[in-house]
Amino acid sequence: MAGKDLKALFLHQLKDTYYAENAIVKALPKLAAAAKSDELRGAFGVHLEETKTQIDRLKRVFELLGEKAEGVECAAIEGIISEGEDVMQEFDGGEALDAGLIASAQAVEHYEIVRYGTMLAWAKQLGMSEIEELLKETLIEEENTDELLSELAEDVINPQAAEA
Amino acid sequence: MAGKDLKALFLHQLKDTYYAENAIVKALPKLAAAAKSDELRGAFGVHLEETKTQIDRLKRVFELLGEKAEGVECAAIEGIISEGEDVMQEFDGGEALDAGLIASAQAVEHYEIVRYGTMLAWAKQLGMSEIEELLKETLIEEENTDELLSELAEDVINPQAAEA
Repeated sequence: MAGKDLKALFLHQLKDTYYAENAIVKALPKLAAAAKSDELRGAFGVHLEETKTQIDRLKRVFELLGEKAEGVECAAIEGIISEGEDVMQEFDGGEALDAGLIASAQAVEHYEIVRYGTMLAWAKQLGMSEIEELLKETLIEEENTDELLSELAEDVINPQAAEA
Repeated sequence: MAGKDLKALFLHQLKDTYYAENAIVKALPKLAAAAKSDELRGAFGVHLEETKTQIDRLKRVFELLGEKAEGVECAAIEGIISEGEDVMQEFDGGEALDAGLIASAQAVEHYEIVRYGTMLAWAKQLGMSEIEELLKETLIEEENTDELLSELAEDVINPQAAEA
């Protein structure tokens, strides 16, 4: 860490987010395997592919900064994923399982949304326009995924869970 | 937990959020004490009072459900807060500290936004209209706080951090 300035903070957050994205790539197949709804399973599959592209964008950001792509342990995403696993176990076999899986996925999405939003603001402040564009692409994808999951929950998954 | 249905899932999420809000009440004074900017310190103070009101609303939700107000350990909020403490230590004395504090606070806000959003959708599905109203009040407050922190970051805190 060269200094304690905004660029050092940006790099710290970048490593945290890189760790988080890699943890999400491991978690998404578990969510997909647990999902009862085909539509939900499909949404998790699509987001897995998107997440891999997002990791490639982060690697490009490291490259533009002249830094090695590496993560720092992100206790937040570990906690969010571990809560999702608890719900998966506790509601296994129950009618509300898919509703719980969507809730977990949306908690993951919001963690990414806030981190990309923050990094975007810092990149803008630091005049790093190419990095800003890369972060913006991912942020828009995350917001779209969150919106899609909300619609799927409200239109399909929650009504099914409540019918039980 | 008696069942595995949507109401049981709602109660689980309610307990998780109750735990989270109580952890936030303990964390906010630390953020406020670390903040260099008076404006940021003030914003944390205002949100502390708001959070206490939000806890009262959650207690009312438990009451409406005929359940005891109690938390279940929320690994997600513990992780988010612990990351904030790491940043606080690592950037202590540096010009980017306040930018890091705002980022931590916004990560907390987004965790609340996603959990209240999910509980609101479930309450709506379950026809619990009084509970829905209580959750909606808090959700709007959280979204406003997040918006306010973004503005403070972009207009005041980030430019100061970048000048250093």
